[in-house]
Amino acid sequence: MSESYFYEQASGHGLPHDPLKAIIAPRPIGWISSVDAEGRVNLAPYSFFNMVSDRPPMVMFSSNGWKDSVRNVEETGEFVANLAGFALAQAMNTTSASVPHEVDEMELAELAKAPSRLVRPPRVAAAAAALECRRISITHLRGLDGAPSSNYMVVGQVVAVHIDPAFLKNGRFDTAAAAPLGRCGYRGDYATADRIFEMIRPT
Amino acid sequence: MSESYFYEQASGHGLPHDPLKAIIAPRPIGWISSVDAEGRVNLAPYSFFNMVSDRPPMVMFSSNGWKDSVRNVEETGEFVANLAGFALAQAMNTTSASVPHEVDEMELAELAKAPSRLVRPPRVAAAAAALECRRISITHLRGLDGAPSSNYMVVGQVVAVHIDPAFLKNGRFDTAAAAPLGRCGYRGDYATADRIFEMIRPT
Repeated sequence: MSESYFYEQASGHGLPHDPLKAIIAPRPIGWISSVDAEGRVNLAPYSFFNMVSDRPPMVMFSSNGWKDSVRNVEETGEFVANLAGFALAQAMNTTSASVPHEVDEMELAELAKAPSRLVRPPRVAAAAAALECRRISITHLRGLDGAPSSNYMVVGQVVAVHIDPAFLKNGRFDTAAAAPLGRCGYRGDYATADRIFEMIRPT
Repeated sequence: MSESYFYEQASGHGLPHDPLKAIIAPRPIGWISSVDAEGRVNLAPYSFFNMVSDRPPMVMFSSNGWKDSVRNVEETGEFVANLAGFALAQAMNTTSASVPHEVDEMELAELAKAPSRLVRPPRVAAAAAALECRRISITHLRGLDGAPSSNYMVVGQVVAVHIDPAFLKNGRFDTAAAAPLGRCGYRGDYATADRIFEMIRPT
């Protein structure tokens, strides 16, 4: 048996807390660094983030509102998606604060910068991996009724990847060792992908 | 220090295995049920899946190739995203097999169907939660050079959610109890979000 809740009703879904972010989980975190036209740095985590294309490799992140990351990607066409592992959880959380555009969240969280190779935004030096991306599109999403959504979706192509060699084992990235955070819904809920099991796909 | 690999090179990224799916992790799984115009059922897991909009609630999944799920959503405009929890891991894996269009993967994996309320595709009865969705768009993605990507991105609006009340605690969906699978890259690597910790966002 199951209980059903309808998002079409004007009265809302009928639960005290919206369950969707707890159901669509664990969500990977795109810890997005970007710069504006003047080179001012921004760093912010997005859990509406994932790969969207295999060849060429492309990722998307979706921002609830026109935030600095989106503004910067529009201005400069570039961003970096840094991996937020458990070792950097507190720093990642610090960069989720709402602060003025002028504030450099990498300084706020005392995160050292490392230069990127093909794009201007710096990387988080301590991240186990980082993806340099160039903008494909920024879309203000629209709902079934044609009205604008709360969200802007940014799609970018991965042009370079940086990996801390401590996390490479036999040429493979060691996800369990990097322990990437997964966002799980409600306030501050997270999981950590630090234990991996394997199921081989049937042929 | 980090090692750098470039996706722009014609020679590829220079690693024996593409690291991206191991870095962009854990990825939530959209276990997508759909029907074609004749009502034939399809069920398949997609790890290029996430929320993309808060209001209205919208999700996306991206398919490497024009697979049955995409074809069905194009034909009927509807799909259901079922939650794949650890208890259903083997069944989920069974539905990832490449089988002819005529094969009903819910039968193949011996999964009972439950009716949806607003859309035609059935739900996985045993899933802890399921989201009924209506199509917003299907996009054949394109890379920076304008060439078609391998992937088709489907965006849908969530119109109803079903929750097994065993997973509701004080009006909240209990993610840890549902133990959603997270895809982690390479062959058959998965994590399970069965332990949750909390970090409160700074104000």
